Amino acid sequence: MLVSKTKPRNLTEKNNASSEDRAVFFISDRTGITAEVLGNSLLTQFESLSFKKITIPFIDTPEKAEGTLQSINQENDKNNLRPIVFATIINDEIREIIAESKGYTIDFFKTFIGPLELILENRSSGIVGLSHSIKDTEEYHTKMDALNFALAYDDGVNIENYQHADLILVGVSRSGKTPTSIYLAMQYGLKVANYPLVEDELNHEHLPEVLNKHRNKMISLTVKAEKLSSIRSERMPNSNYASLKQCQKEVEHAEHIYSEYKIRTLDSTNSSVEELATKIMLITGLERKISS
Amino acid sequence: MLVSKTKPRNLTEKNNASSEDRAVFFISDRTGITAEVLGNSLLTQFESLSFKKITIPFIDTPEKAEGTLQSINQENDKNNLRPIVFATIINDEIREIIAESKGYTIDFFKTFIGPLELILENRSSGIVGLSHSIKDTEEYHTKMDALNFALAYDDGVNIENYQHADLILVGVSRSGKTPTSIYLAMQYGLKVANYPLVEDELNHEHLPEVLNKHRNKMISLTVKAEKLSSIRSERMPNSNYASLKQCQKEVEHAEHIYSEYKIRTLDSTNSSVEELATKIMLITGLERKISS
Repeated sequence: MLVSKTKPRNLTEKNNASSEDRAVFFISDRTGITAEVLGNSLLTQFESLSFKKITIPFIDTPEKAEGTLQSINQENDKNNLRPIVFATIINDEIREIIAESKGYTIDFFKTFIGPLELILENRSSGIVGLSHSIKDTEEYHTKMDALNFALAYDDGVNIENYQHADLILVGVSRSGKTPTSIYLAMQYGLKVANYPLVEDELNHEHLPEVLNKHRNKMISLTVKAEKLSSIRSERMPNSNYASLKQCQKEVEHAEHIYSEYKIRTLDSTNSSVEELATKIMLITGLERKISS
Repeated sequence: MLVSKTKPRNLTEKNNASSEDRAVFFISDRTGITAEVLGNSLLTQFESLSFKKITIPFIDTPEKAEGTLQSINQENDKNNLRPIVFATIINDEIREIIAESKGYTIDFFKTFIGPLELILENRSSGIVGLSHSIKDTEEYHTKMDALNFALAYDDGVNIENYQHADLILVGVSRSGKTPTSIYLAMQYGLKVANYPLVEDELNHEHLPEVLNKHRNKMISLTVKAEKLSSIRSERMPNSNYASLKQCQKEVEHAEHIYSEYKIRTLDSTNSSVEELATKIMLITGLERKISS
């Protein structure tokens, strides 16, 4: 690997941070992804404030930890706003170096590992990098398989092999099928095919037989015509494809199909991909195949 | 939306959990993704134990919270192993109901929001669902744009428009380019194209001019021939494409190209997509375009 520098580089978020903004650090002996997800989730509760966000991953030696400590202290001294440090560090020595900085450290592992050890009557392994690594080979394999499946079965391709799919998403063009399929693969390890309803099917309000026989594993995505028109306009402005009239027609026909064929339907208009995926898991009762 | 049942359904992980396994709940008034990331990250430190994992998202009414509390208590009574409850709940009333269960609750927001309010001298908004929702429209837009870009610029497609890419990944077939591109889109909002080196380029150890002019934003992925052969064998067993000899030849030629053209190279052999993405951010110095 190329990356084994003593002095760690920072990953600063492009968020037009000014020198007046408080620095927020995400520090980890691995990728820092967990620290980012958790830290950002807390910071969303302080919407009115803006932050200068800096991720420093792979802090796995005392030397790198010392460099990081200096970076934190520099940010503190710049504007006298105490930096917030979100840390996921397993190694005690490294964690203690970071804890000596002028920042306020929220240490996710330290806070919770102790209580968990008590309740589980078990010592934690203290091994670095067990999440977001390739170490759990079987899980990782399942995830990559699912992602490859989503790509190979995107947009109506491979319809003759839908028996291999855990789930089939149906909808008009740009209703959110592809990103949702990919997210379900990455987050849950599910094999999700997606099928776009085409003009002939919409006009005749008819599903092809090959699709109909897999109806029990189908979920349809609908979306308000105004939203659909705005999404399509980004790709093909001023086209018939993106016109409100065309979108209204397609959505109306599609919803008739879902109702006639009794296909469970979710509305993607105001939902993120994450929310759609969670709702799909709920209504289908599908079990996740990977931890997350 | 279809999902507004009073009695919440559980999402149980398929992990061959036996009745002897301790139940772990991930409970949230939104998707539960943050609770899962936190909980699973902590549980990786207790490798020797197995758990029955249950995610219960969208617990946004006291009625749903009561149903959830009963589910926790039932698991407790089944095997007398106190369940672990990872909770990300903003609403005080709902949080307090869950806290009354027989489980041991690790309450993410409650633990950290108080100290953060003090240090930031600011009250938290108390608004549910600000992360993993569509509410931050601009960020969400950037992420979806980046994902669409990765799909539209996959596998050497659209090479004439590479000026729009933030990054170009180069490598032989099945070296990890596509999943890494998608991950960089979803996690960092970056527009990443990927280009597979084809036979003619490998044999002549030559890059096409259209690619060469974007060399400054190229990263190449290499992989040990044995690993590559095993990955390719899954797709096309007993083929020349998957043979160790062919893989050795391709990897050797590819590495000559990277060296000759001075393209920064990462080895994907023992790295997860998450680790590769983090390393790419580090060595390129690219700034993330979304929070996470």
